[in-house]
Amino acid sequence: MSNPAVSAPTIGVFDSGFGGLTVLRALIERLPRARYAFLGDTARLPYGSKSRRTIARYAVESAQFLAHEQGAEFLVIACNTASALALDAIQQAVSVPVLGVIEPGASAARDASRTGDVLVIATDATVQSHAYAAACHTLGLRALEKACPLLVPLVEEGWTDHPVTAEVIRIYLDELSADAAAHGLHADTLVLGCTHYPLLRPLIEQAVPAGMRVIDSAESAADAAVRLFNGRAAASAASAAQPTEILCFATDSVEKFERLGSRFLGRPVGRVELVDLGG
Amino acid sequence: MSNPAVSAPTIGVFDSGFGGLTVLRALIERLPRARYAFLGDTARLPYGSKSRRTIARYAVESAQFLAHEQGAEFLVIACNTASALALDAIQQAVSVPVLGVIEPGASAARDASRTGDVLVIATDATVQSHAYAAACHTLGLRALEKACPLLVPLVEEGWTDHPVTAEVIRIYLDELSADAAAHGLHADTLVLGCTHYPLLRPLIEQAVPAGMRVIDSAESAADAAVRLFNGRAAASAASAAQPTEILCFATDSVEKFERLGSRFLGRPVGRVELVDLGG
Repeated sequence: MSNPAVSAPTIGVFDSGFGGLTVLRALIERLPRARYAFLGDTARLPYGSKSRRTIARYAVESAQFLAHEQGAEFLVIACNTASALALDAIQQAVSVPVLGVIEPGASAARDASRTGDVLVIATDATVQSHAYAAACHTLGLRALEKACPLLVPLVEEGWTDHPVTAEVIRIYLDELSADAAAHGLHADTLVLGCTHYPLLRPLIEQAVPAGMRVIDSAESAADAAVRLFNGRAAASAASAAQPTEILCFATDSVEKFERLGSRFLGRPVGRVELVDLGG
Repeated sequence: MSNPAVSAPTIGVFDSGFGGLTVLRALIERLPRARYAFLGDTARLPYGSKSRRTIARYAVESAQFLAHEQGAEFLVIACNTASALALDAIQQAVSVPVLGVIEPGASAARDASRTGDVLVIATDATVQSHAYAAACHTLGLRALEKACPLLVPLVEEGWTDHPVTAEVIRIYLDELSADAAAHGLHADTLVLGCTHYPLLRPLIEQAVPAGMRVIDSAESAADAAVRLFNGRAAASAASAAQPTEILCFATDSVEKFERLGSRFLGRPVGRVELVDLGG
């Protein structure tokens, strides 16, 4: 066990499932010398098809577990749906800084776009919240969002390089392009507004028109986290000579988490502990 | 409100989501003069990717709501996953008769099959429980099961008559056929072991070899329920001159339930009441 007096701060990372491990992976690349507590609320996933009220309740319980029981000093909500529908509720429920993935994704889109018109693909709940559209509008961008509910199941089936997945992506992006043209948008940037989608990035980049920039909100959120941490005392501790420490928690089958999680994290997730949030 | 002294008994029907409405539909066709209380545990769906422990906890809470709070005198577990993993737990938790969908599906397969070899398609959790294989073996059948995790999302996307869905069904059934051949099975019957799959029946019937019988476990469970009720006093009450009464409950967004539910029920679901099971 690490000694709290000399260790780097604990960074809590939360998702409804495994997708948030793409954010954890991007965080570890940028801040390797830190202690990470990752919670996947796998007993209640997916959040993407549920209501704001239910998502907020689940997300607050998960955030409180990381902040109160795991001593996380920062929280990264590595779930677009929870960021879109529950960031305010989480910020009110815990006293530590909380970072979502929506605003970093919108900021990266602003930096990437020349036309000021961007497209966003995400889950049903994220799209219905219009959180990306609102964040983009605040930054002076026009944004059009589209729900792509089949992409998460396709990733979880392991069909990340499959002709069916390529066809589903083509159908979704064709519908989005037609809708963008009908709205008079000249989009040059596509935001991947779900932490599962980075695993489909090669297929998505093959499907978009030449020259379109693809923004990964997991990467953008990790960049924002580094900027946040660098402005705080934590940064010096996090840069001390200490190896990466990763604690993983799940609310359902730890075996499945261990098996699927490595796909998203890009390395073995190690031992996963089962927690009961009462849901 | 109906008067308990003269009304037909309340039949409780439970599913993790909307799929069980295909069972309710089959029940109403057979027992139109009854009062039905249907609960969709939509805040915690899907069950099909979760562990036995979690599924049992959710299913018991749902069954107790129908038996204790809605006064259901019979329960039909219109969810293959909950029937496969939690039927015993439910039967122990409530004092009314409880019918699942697995054994009726296996019985119908026995009646349909000439070779004694059957195939079963279902969710991950149902397949991992091997509940269909066990029920089939008890009846003297050999059974091979296959998880088809993309079919539920495809139905929920509304792609019930879509080329992508036809292709996914072809891939799954080809894999299952190859596996059956490798096991030396001469299967002539396919059981639809998930209450979403009846909506894909036309595509599935196009994909199976000529002469293969397709068994819908929703229909089989409704037939078994009629036999169960006919052996009880309830049958006479249920045949009294009384219109069908349907009460629907959901643990998440009632708007979504009202919108999607009619697709499964084959008619409007009417008003849906939100319930909180504490999850």
